[in-house]
Amino acid sequence: MQKVLTELYGNPSSLHNMGMDAENLIKDSRQIIAKTLKAKPAEITFTSGGSESNNLAIFGTVRNRSRFGKHIITTEVEHPAVREPMAALEAEGYEVTRLKVDKTGVIDLAELSDAMRDDTVLVSIMQVNNEIGSVMPVEEAAAIIHEKNKNTYFHVDAIQSYGKLELRPGKAGIDLLSVSGHKLHGPKGSGFLYIRDGIRIAPIIYGGGQESGLRSGTENVPAIAGLGVAVESLFSDHESKISHMRDLRSRFIEGITGIEGVSINGPSADSAAPHIVSTTVKGVRAEVLLHALEAEGVYCSAGSACSSNRPAISKTLTAIGLKGDALEQTVRFSLSIHTTEEEIERAVSVMSDIVPKLSRFTRR
Amino acid sequence: MQKVLTELYGNPSSLHNMGMDAENLIKDSRQIIAKTLKAKPAEITFTSGGSESNNLAIFGTVRNRSRFGKHIITTEVEHPAVREPMAALEAEGYEVTRLKVDKTGVIDLAELSDAMRDDTVLVSIMQVNNEIGSVMPVEEAAAIIHEKNKNTYFHVDAIQSYGKLELRPGKAGIDLLSVSGHKLHGPKGSGFLYIRDGIRIAPIIYGGGQESGLRSGTENVPAIAGLGVAVESLFSDHESKISHMRDLRSRFIEGITGIEGVSINGPSADSAAPHIVSTTVKGVRAEVLLHALEAEGVYCSAGSACSSNRPAISKTLTAIGLKGDALEQTVRFSLSIHTTEEEIERAVSVMSDIVPKLSRFTRR
Repeated sequence: MQKVLTELYGNPSSLHNMGMDAENLIKDSRQIIAKTLKAKPAEITFTSGGSESNNLAIFGTVRNRSRFGKHIITTEVEHPAVREPMAALEAEGYEVTRLKVDKTGVIDLAELSDAMRDDTVLVSIMQVNNEIGSVMPVEEAAAIIHEKNKNTYFHVDAIQSYGKLELRPGKAGIDLLSVSGHKLHGPKGSGFLYIRDGIRIAPIIYGGGQESGLRSGTENVPAIAGLGVAVESLFSDHESKISHMRDLRSRFIEGITGIEGVSINGPSADSAAPHIVSTTVKGVRAEVLLHALEAEGVYCSAGSACSSNRPAISKTLTAIGLKGDALEQTVRFSLSIHTTEEEIERAVSVMSDIVPKLSRFTRR
Repeated sequence: MQKVLTELYGNPSSLHNMGMDAENLIKDSRQIIAKTLKAKPAEITFTSGGSESNNLAIFGTVRNRSRFGKHIITTEVEHPAVREPMAALEAEGYEVTRLKVDKTGVIDLAELSDAMRDDTVLVSIMQVNNEIGSVMPVEEAAAIIHEKNKNTYFHVDAIQSYGKLELRPGKAGIDLLSVSGHKLHGPKGSGFLYIRDGIRIAPIIYGGGQESGLRSGTENVPAIAGLGVAVESLFSDHESKISHMRDLRSRFIEGITGIEGVSINGPSADSAAPHIVSTTVKGVRAEVLLHALEAEGVYCSAGSACSSNRPAISKTLTAIGLKGDALEQTVRFSLSIHTTEEEIERAVSVMSDIVPKLSRFTRR
């Protein structure tokens, strides 16, 4: 990125060689990414990040396909970047069905099947829940959706799953798939939307016609180049990275479940994503735990960092059945491919030390 | 930006100190920028660039204000990031009036006044034309607009003027003002929309509620920080930088107008922006000239680099009266605060050398 920012700063739309060099950087990143999804380069549209990808998929579909109906299906546990566009469309007159989830955060495919209608234009289901790490059966969902209505587009928010679970959207019958760069060690301000060949959506940003007319604006070449490098690095020796993360996750869960008052939310180890641990600590408010851990160099998240400065009760935790105080006593730990055994041991040790102290303090 | 990318990579929405550090970087940039416009920090909304800023201003206004009418006024010479949203709204049923321009690329204020109606929700006029450098009378336009209809929002595309001409949107009666980072030596993927206090628009990207709910998505902190640094640097000793640019522009025009077949399009020196020179070279196709100059290290643009890979006849050049071959024989030279006297002399010398050769070649 430094090289792109300081040397290769041409505008990809310029006809001269500095423009060409910039255009080639984009082409390279597009190819790297397409390969990881067994997709065609033309199926990858770069955006400014995951939220824009989700918004483009949702508004892009309904703006282009309202002739097929005004019914949308989604779930109760989506990220705000899906939830809020749905609410905006509801205010416009669209009808939105929100599928419930069970205690582990997973939808019921029979409920999806029943919800499908002739006027369903879009189904949007996240693959991995950002707060509790549950994995949705998106391939099975795709089969149901396309069998029930050939005009329905299926969007998958893969922001928490891309690079963590294997996925071939083309083969799986996924029409649109959102990815964020900074969730995979790429730069903030980068992301993409996979748009399956033949799928037609409207843009949300119009102008010079970049990205095949789907995302106008001078391309953010340094971010796109950085995203390509991050993806290439992540997908080299990929399986061992994922199993490393999964092992550490199990070890972390094992370590902290012995602490009094600590419980794990969401799916069981086997069915969970390899990198998210949602933990309720009885009697300790999330912010208190967060800052106490921070003082020891352990960083966690109270609910989801995705909602800017809005202390709100988590819709996901509510949907899986958490009640009362537990909703405000829940933090999320995230692992990455760079997390080490030592870090996990340290985090367990800090939790073992801090939680009993904070619990005592609370009880007084 | 390097420091932000490698060390200060927290999510501004996170509650821990790495999140706070990131949030402070955004706050600093917002203050730096607000000061240059004599605006309040809360009036600055960061976006992914100029195209997004224009789209947010336009769609944001009409989606929130359609109860006041469905008539929009703009000009014939806007950038695609304004022109294309207007075309999309026309397809939706909005009525768009496009003001004509004279030979120098400037609108007639009487025509604007006549075009104003009770159902005009938005007027969008660029301050400086990106292809020919003409300057629109946006302050006078603001007075007319607000006098004629107090419900009309006035948007100014300032992407080619911010940092080149002085501007105080609050005092001038401008409601919305778009700026792009990479036009002022900031990073690609950065930009902002000034939204005057009291002005209410809808977002185009919904989600976690960042940027006061107007632009969801994890903030692109490195780009925002880079933009702040670029703005601060640009606005130090600002006047001398601008007059340096203006002097060099005059010298360049003086140097090349002596060459046979070369003419300058658009406004006269006094009324033009300090950094754009549109040149028609009789008998020489733009692409041919561009590549011949490139071989000598002089980079220019054929039409506007803002339209991605779409060789189209320029709407701006047509609007100022260029006809036939001249439309395909026009290139644009851009100056910056970093342009040197030596570079201008070199560019003039290369043009003096190349143009006669290419003209002869063409005549054969």
